[in-house]
Amino acid sequence: MLSKSEIGFIKSLQQKKFRKEQALFVVEGLKSVLEFLQSGYRIHSVYGTSTILPKLGKISQNIKLLEVKADEIAKISGLNTPQDVLAVVYIPQKDEKELIIEANTFHLLLDGVQDPGNLGTIIRTADWFGFKELICSIDTVEAYNPKVVQASMGSLARIKVIYTDLEDVIRRSSLPTFAATLGGTSIFETKFGTEGLLILGNEGNGIRPEILEKVSNQVTIPLFGAAESLNVAVSAGIFCAEVRRKA
Amino acid sequence: MLSKSEIGFIKSLQQKKFRKEQALFVVEGLKSVLEFLQSGYRIHSVYGTSTILPKLGKISQNIKLLEVKADEIAKISGLNTPQDVLAVVYIPQKDEKELIIEANTFHLLLDGVQDPGNLGTIIRTADWFGFKELICSIDTVEAYNPKVVQASMGSLARIKVIYTDLEDVIRRSSLPTFAATLGGTSIFETKFGTEGLLILGNEGNGIRPEILEKVSNQVTIPLFGAAESLNVAVSAGIFCAEVRRKA
Repeated sequence: MLSKSEIGFIKSLQQKKFRKEQALFVVEGLKSVLEFLQSGYRIHSVYGTSTILPKLGKISQNIKLLEVKADEIAKISGLNTPQDVLAVVYIPQKDEKELIIEANTFHLLLDGVQDPGNLGTIIRTADWFGFKELICSIDTVEAYNPKVVQASMGSLARIKVIYTDLEDVIRRSSLPTFAATLGGTSIFETKFGTEGLLILGNEGNGIRPEILEKVSNQVTIPLFGAAESLNVAVSAGIFCAEVRRKA
Repeated sequence: MLSKSEIGFIKSLQQKKFRKEQALFVVEGLKSVLEFLQSGYRIHSVYGTSTILPKLGKISQNIKLLEVKADEIAKISGLNTPQDVLAVVYIPQKDEKELIIEANTFHLLLDGVQDPGNLGTIIRTADWFGFKELICSIDTVEAYNPKVVQASMGSLARIKVIYTDLEDVIRRSSLPTFAATLGGTSIFETKFGTEGLLILGNEGNGIRPEILEKVSNQVTIPLFGAAESLNVAVSAGIFCAEVRRKA
């Protein structure tokens, strides 16, 4: 049985403050837990029901493994509909090496995306389209937020999310830059070539002017109807598809 | 000041049961309320603060208009961060005329989409790409769910959402059919022509087999990485962009 302090500890990881203090976050659901078990992430502990634990395969002895009842999972879960398994995972320590932007490929940059569902969906989309990492401005929503983890559907286990100064990344890279804006060249007429930085901005305000002025190509998904804008995760998907179709 | 019963009445519209009983739903935020005021929807009442009401322009005398304090709006709002204006809007009565599928254009069909955020985002995307309506299976999430209204960002005021038997729609229409699946022809190699039905399925299970067997083209967004699937709203966006770029 889970102790009160253990329940309190795991529940506290729903909050950013405690995730930062403990350098731990929570992953829920069989698919996502499996993806993290198979990834490079260090796992702290796994809580699962008797029916689900055998589905996890062989688990390293360094990982604390606990069989719990479904109603106990409900007590530590952050979901409205708790799943049968939950893992506590270490947040990777900051890589002190300088970020290297590879040539001959595309990179996705996010400037101030705030909605955790959007970030999670973009991580999943980046994973589908074969991106290796997501480069985010410091003020982008935190990738270990439970709603981000949930929306990423396990893709967070594969996609590195890096928080850094985007102006600096753009300044240091010699790759062509493409910013998603409302007043640029049609995406259907843009020649993306085979490499570049694709930049998408905040839900309400788009990309910051300081960043926009360093970008060489503003690209727009043409409007055929009357909506004021597209959701940022939908835009990211259309941009990813477009650079892959042309590659 | 709002009476207790008025607060209870508006709050009850957060629940499907009461929306159905009253044939009313709630729209929040200046942008969305303005879009509904300018649409063909019949408005029941508008609650706004003294600073926001002048921004609504001239309002028909048939609409009940109430100036309320911000803390009163918080009491009737379904949002975590309440906006300064909220409207109660009539759910349109079912149009008894048979649905007519126009030729020479594309139509978007949803089979069992369950997440309200996804449906709202698809409504917004359909509006961006100039679709006139969204044709949904009966078990698709209800369009007047507050989370759908919110995610649609006002586009629900323009896009007609129709709930009907999709098999019947496909049977009666002579337009080519394109289903988003994981095992079809690449979307980049598909010739969409100038008209057709685009069909997307449920988040977990995709399109029902009964429907899939009536569809002539299965179309897939190629996988370049390792994610198991794409979010349905992201897929819808990529499909919409693709048919518009080729049109």
